[in-house]
Amino acid sequence: MNIGILVFDDVEVLDFCGPLETFSVVNDVSDTKSNVFTISKRKNPVQARSNLIVKSNYSIKDHPALDILIIPGGNGARKIFNDEEILKWIYIQYGRVKYLLSVCTGALILAKLGLLLNKKATTHHTCFHLLEEIDPTIEIVRDQRFVDEDKIVTSGGISAGIDMSFFMIEKIWGEDLAKAVAKEMEYYIS
Amino acid sequence: MNIGILVFDDVEVLDFCGPLETFSVVNDVSDTKSNVFTISKRKNPVQARSNLIVKSNYSIKDHPALDILIIPGGNGARKIFNDEEILKWIYIQYGRVKYLLSVCTGALILAKLGLLLNKKATTHHTCFHLLEEIDPTIEIVRDQRFVDEDKIVTSGGISAGIDMSFFMIEKIWGEDLAKAVAKEMEYYIS
Repeated sequence: MNIGILVFDDVEVLDFCGPLETFSVVNDVSDTKSNVFTISKRKNPVQARSNLIVKSNYSIKDHPALDILIIPGGNGARKIFNDEEILKWIYIQYGRVKYLLSVCTGALILAKLGLLLNKKATTHHTCFHLLEEIDPTIEIVRDQRFVDEDKIVTSGGISAGIDMSFFMIEKIWGEDLAKAVAKEMEYYIS
Repeated sequence: MNIGILVFDDVEVLDFCGPLETFSVVNDVSDTKSNVFTISKRKNPVQARSNLIVKSNYSIKDHPALDILIIPGGNGARKIFNDEEILKWIYIQYGRVKYLLSVCTGALILAKLGLLLNKKATTHHTCFHLLEEIDPTIEIVRDQRFVDEDKIVTSGGISAGIDMSFFMIEKIWGEDLAKAVAKEMEYYIS
């Protein structure tokens, strides 16, 4: 299972590190292989939020085939709106992956691509109106940590990406594995 | 407020990114200045757990004076045990900082330095026995997310570092700010 996480300048740290950690711990508590890595536009270091400098594992031109693509949010997410190269790459990946996940304002990017047309979705609570503006056909879900639309799953703000990751682990590998990961991470899932 | 987070090869991602995120969001929701950065032994990239490559902001030789030092855990924490240079640096910082915090198996490093002598402390739930072995005078706390010993605060495994960060934000800046950060991060604190 290849799980790629897009990183970019001003990406919110927990948006991408929460899922990165959660999907990685799968390897610690089972024989399942969960290969999680970061992908950026170019392989140069990315200046994430909070002074965190990340060297991505791959660029959008040289990454392995993905089973899951995760689009985090943060202030940098809005710059992606004008980046046709990344938008096109996400769109192509959407056709290839099993699941496309967003965290926080990452949902705005999916909306911009038209991928949430007539779907239910969520985002950071301060950005519900933006999601609505981008695509008025989206049914905004304001009271859930994440929203499952089969191939696309969107999650709420920052820490909600962790809960979505647990949901996906349960969906893919079952409840026992999700519980084992939660125990290892000392995280409480409902 | 200068908050330094030690990073090293095989550091657990959420151990350091949880506090990094939480202390950073303080800046988003208040006029308080919370300057959070990573510190490594050398300024070379650090290969954290889960394929995450981090370029630290400072080395242990060139970082600004710290108010808070955070020692995360992970498999790499045990290698720090034999690194006299880092151990000495942590010990010196302990004399200078207002607070020394550990996440997960970072507590083992503090124990190794003798800093938890006759104190209550916690760590990842699979490592309680190791903490006891290193220093039998430590009173292991098995049922709390974090343990406050004034200048030293230890937290449990992986995600517990986020809860400890909220506790520290409340301790330093008050409950209202902690609540504002939690709301922004969509994290539930008790």
